[in-house]
Amino acid sequence: MFEFKIEAKDERSSARAGVFVTPHGDIPTPVFAPVGTQATVKTLSPDDLVSVGARLILANAYHLYLRPGHELIRDLGGLHRFMNWKGPILTDSGGFQVFSLVDLRDVDEDGVTFRSHIDGSMHRFTPEKVMQIEEALGSDIAMVLDECPPPKDRGYNEEALKRTHSWAIRCRNAHRREDQALFGIVQGGIFPDLREASAKFVTSLDFQGYAIGGLSVGETKEEMYATLDATVPLLPEDRPRYLMGVGTPEDILEGVERGIDFFDCVFPTRVARNGTFLTHTGRLNIKNARFTDDLEPIEPGCTCYTCRNYSRAYLRHLFMAKETLGLRLATIHNIHFMEKLMADVRRSIKDGTFLEFKESFLLAYRSGQSKVRLPAEVS
Amino acid sequence: MFEFKIEAKDERSSARAGVFVTPHGDIPTPVFAPVGTQATVKTLSPDDLVSVGARLILANAYHLYLRPGHELIRDLGGLHRFMNWKGPILTDSGGFQVFSLVDLRDVDEDGVTFRSHIDGSMHRFTPEKVMQIEEALGSDIAMVLDECPPPKDRGYNEEALKRTHSWAIRCRNAHRREDQALFGIVQGGIFPDLREASAKFVTSLDFQGYAIGGLSVGETKEEMYATLDATVPLLPEDRPRYLMGVGTPEDILEGVERGIDFFDCVFPTRVARNGTFLTHTGRLNIKNARFTDDLEPIEPGCTCYTCRNYSRAYLRHLFMAKETLGLRLATIHNIHFMEKLMADVRRSIKDGTFLEFKESFLLAYRSGQSKVRLPAEVS
Repeated sequence: MFEFKIEAKDERSSARAGVFVTPHGDIPTPVFAPVGTQATVKTLSPDDLVSVGARLILANAYHLYLRPGHELIRDLGGLHRFMNWKGPILTDSGGFQVFSLVDLRDVDEDGVTFRSHIDGSMHRFTPEKVMQIEEALGSDIAMVLDECPPPKDRGYNEEALKRTHSWAIRCRNAHRREDQALFGIVQGGIFPDLREASAKFVTSLDFQGYAIGGLSVGETKEEMYATLDATVPLLPEDRPRYLMGVGTPEDILEGVERGIDFFDCVFPTRVARNGTFLTHTGRLNIKNARFTDDLEPIEPGCTCYTCRNYSRAYLRHLFMAKETLGLRLATIHNIHFMEKLMADVRRSIKDGTFLEFKESFLLAYRSGQSKVRLPAEVS
Repeated sequence: MFEFKIEAKDERSSARAGVFVTPHGDIPTPVFAPVGTQATVKTLSPDDLVSVGARLILANAYHLYLRPGHELIRDLGGLHRFMNWKGPILTDSGGFQVFSLVDLRDVDEDGVTFRSHIDGSMHRFTPEKVMQIEEALGSDIAMVLDECPPPKDRGYNEEALKRTHSWAIRCRNAHRREDQALFGIVQGGIFPDLREASAKFVTSLDFQGYAIGGLSVGETKEEMYATLDATVPLLPEDRPRYLMGVGTPEDILEGVERGIDFFDCVFPTRVARNGTFLTHTGRLNIKNARFTDDLEPIEPGCTCYTCRNYSRAYLRHLFMAKETLGLRLATIHNIHFMEKLMADVRRSIKDGTFLEFKESFLLAYRSGQSKVRLPAEVS
C-alpha cells in the first residue's frame, strides 16, 4: 500500500528525488507540507491547496484530539472527508505540542499527563493512546509519540531519549492500520552521539519512514546542519526521511542537500498572515509605504492566483484595512512559492543541477533581503 | 450608456423585473448587492462573488476616501481594476457613514466636517467633493450626498431635508462622468408628507435612478413599509428604485412587492461571520452543539460551494476553533442564498407568481426560526 521509489540521486550531494505512494495519491519528494493544524490550512480551502500545488498536508493529533475529538472525526468518516482534502495527510503525534504549547505537564515512563491549552482540562497521552488517535483520524502517515526536549540540554536529552525509544517500540506494537504508514522519530538534540544512538535504535524497529525531530527550536543553523550530517547517513536509503518543523527556503535546501525528503513548517503561512510575501529576491513586507501606489504583482512572472490578479497596492490596502481576504491571498502566494521551490528542487535533482540551483536560488533570495527595490521587481 | 428595461410587471402588486444596463454589464432586477465597504466583500474574492451569482456590489466612498484614498484608486486605474471585480459597482456617497460612524461632525448648509473614525483626522465633504470622490473611484452608479437623520425625529428631518435637497441639486450640477449613473436619494424619515415632498423634489431633478434612504435604522417594520407605500408611487416608473441598506429576506420581499428594484445590506455577510447561516427554513447558528456530529450540508440541495463540500460538523468545528476558512464558507453560502432568492423573485415576477412565491418563501423561512430541527433538514 506504501512504496518509496527513488527516481534520481544527485551525484555531488545526498539529495534525491522520488515518490512516496500512499492510499490518497503519490507524494513527489522532496516535498513541503503546509500545516493544517486544526484540519484546515489557515485561510485556505482545499481547492486553494490544489491550485498552489500542495501534495501533502500536515494535521495535528494533539489539536484534533482536543477539538473536535478524534472519535468524532472517525465517526464522520475520517479526516480526509471531514476537511474535504482528497490528497495525502500526515499527522503529527502531538509530542511536540505537549512539550511546547502546554504550560503544565507531567512525564513518566508510561506517558504524559497535560493540561489542555483550550479549556484547562487534564488529559493523558500514552503511545497506545496516540496510535488510537491517529488511526481514528485516518491520516496516510502517522508519527510515533516522542519527547521533545530543548536541543542543547544534554542531561534532559539523555533522559528523554530513553522514553522516546521505549514509546517508539510501543507505538510500533500498537499500530494496526495497514492503510496508514507509521514513521519513527530520531531525537537526541544537537549531540552527535545521542543522534547516532537514536538513529540506530529507531531504524532497528523497521518503520516505513524516519523523521528527525527536535530541531529548528533554538539551536543555531550550524548546529542544525551538523546534526543532520551526523544523523541522515545512519538512516536507510530506501525509506523517506522527514525533517520535522523545517522550514525556510534556506533550511529546506540545506536539508535536501543532506538527503531529506519531507519537510513541513508553519513559516510560509504564519508570515503570510503578517503581510510578509516570499519572493525569489527575498521577503517583501506589504505594509511598507513604498507599495502604496505599486501596480506590480508581488512577484512579476509568478503564476499564482494572487499575482495574476492583484497589485501590491491592493494587497497593501487589504492589510492596512485588516481585511481577511488579504490573509488568504498572501497565504496562496507563499504556499505557491514553496511548492514551486520544491518542484524546482525535484527537477534540478533529476537534471543533475541541484547544487547549481541551490546556489543561484540562495544568491538571489539573500540578495533581496536588505534592498529597498530590486531590479527584478522594477522590470 | 445606461438603460433601464422593464421586462415584466406583476399584475397583482407593484413588483417588476428588468435589467439595468451599465458599462460593466447588465444588472438583472430586482437585485441584491453584497456590501464591499473597503473594496472587498469581506472574506470573499471576486471569483467567489461570481460563483455565488452576485451581479452588483456596493463600495463606500467614505471609507475609500479615507483609506487608501480616492485619488490613489483613480491613479491605479479605478476601483474595478484595483479590486479585480469586473462587474458593476455602486458607490454610496458616504452621507450615511458620516452620520452614523462618526462621533464628531458639524453640518452646515455647504457641507459636513467630520472626524475620521480611523485616525481622528478632520475632513470635509461637500456635494462637489463627494462627486469628485465617486468619479475618481469610477463606480458604475454613484449616489448623491445626503443627510441621514434618525427616522422618527420630525424636526431634524424637516431641517435635514432642506440640505439634502440643496445638495442633490449641487451633486447633479457637479457630476461629469457620462460612464457613471447618478442616483438621487429621497429622505424624510417616517413622515409621509416629508417623503412626498422629497420624492417630488428629487425626481424633478431627473436622476438616472432614485433611492429611498434613511430606513431600516430604528423604525418599526410597519413604519418602513408604510413609508415605502407613501414614497414609491411617486417615483417614475421608468427609473430603477433603490432601497438603501435593506435588507433581510423578509424586507426585500416586502420591498419588491412595493416596486423596489435595488437592495444592499451587510446582513448576510455580517451574520455569516457570527456563524449564522441562512436557509429556506430560517437561520441556523452553526455553533449550536446539535451540529457537532451532523454530516448534512447546511441546506440539503443547496448548490453553493460550501454545501457541496462541507458538513455542518466541519463548519461548526471551524467556528469553534476560530478558523478564518469558516468565515469565508459561511459568507459564500449566505450570499449564494440571497442571490438565489433574487433569481427566484425575478423568475416569479416573470411567471406572474410573485405573491405566491413570497407567501410560500416566508411561510417556510419563518416556520424554521424557532424549531430545533426541521423535516427538510432531517431528510
